[in-house]
Amino acid sequence: MFTPQPIGFVSSPYKEASQVPKGLGAKHEAEGTLMILPDLELGLTDIEGFSHLIVLWEFDRSGGFELLGTPPADNRPHGVFATRSPRRPNPIGFTVVELLRRDGLKLHVRGVDMLDGTPVLDIKPYLSNIPAEKLRRGWLAEAEARLK
Amino acid sequence: MFTPQPIGFVSSPYKEASQVPKGLGAKHEAEGTLMILPDLELGLTDIEGFSHLIVLWEFDRSGGFELLGTPPADNRPHGVFATRSPRRPNPIGFTVVELLRRDGLKLHVRGVDMLDGTPVLDIKPYLSNIPAEKLRRGWLAEAEARLK
Repeated sequence: MFTPQPIGFVSSPYKEASQVPKGLGAKHEAEGTLMILPDLELGLTDIEGFSHLIVLWEFDRSGGFELLGTPPADNRPHGVFATRSPRRPNPIGFTVVELLRRDGLKLHVRGVDMLDGTPVLDIKPYLSNIPAEKLRRGWLAEAEARLK
Repeated sequence: MFTPQPIGFVSSPYKEASQVPKGLGAKHEAEGTLMILPDLELGLTDIEGFSHLIVLWEFDRSGGFELLGTPPADNRPHGVFATRSPRRPNPIGFTVVELLRRDGLKLHVRGVDMLDGTPVLDIKPYLSNIPAEKLRRGWLAEAEARLK
């Protein structure tokens, strides 16, 4: 397979995992910056037109993986592919952020849930939603109902 | 960084890139299967409860990257991070699929746009939408208006 390399790094208010809001109703309103590597600046052309970006990044402070784990949003275990756990076979994180503004190589964004210094793997435009009436949220919806 | 390894492979009706619907108004209604590796079966626990899944996968038949390229949806070039081009610094693809049913290690899904045999890197539950009134789609919305 390919060899991952950072395209940039996250500047975030969160220095350690315990500071990141987690669990039911957690809000991700924190502002931060995606600092892109100078060689890649051309790749940002026209990104300003998108309100939201998909950010793929490395869980670089997470070791190993577990197939079954109990997420912060529940008190029951679920399979890793049914959660957003950091302890995944491929430690790739996924976050949708709002693009506030671009300043050259810096993308100022809202909604970071990554730790400061996290390596960014990719950025893609967020293009469309799943119709709300078609979306089912499995154990998460059940946990919300049960734990409320 | 980490060393990517497949968690499974896509079984898709598309054998080559030219067969995948592309460009403005392209619909991804094709059905396919995500075949997960036997060692990872426990990681699928409770995945049936989600209607939609995020699939991260490797563009394994794409070589190198280009920072500026003209996507099928437009006749003007845009930065790679403002497109879904396969020719990316880290060749990671992103697709949201609808989970039709699970059959042990096989996830039957709708909405595949990957080639047959594509390595899967990760699966995550699709949890929420960006409010439609907050979504801006940059050059893509402009191209739609211009090329219609």
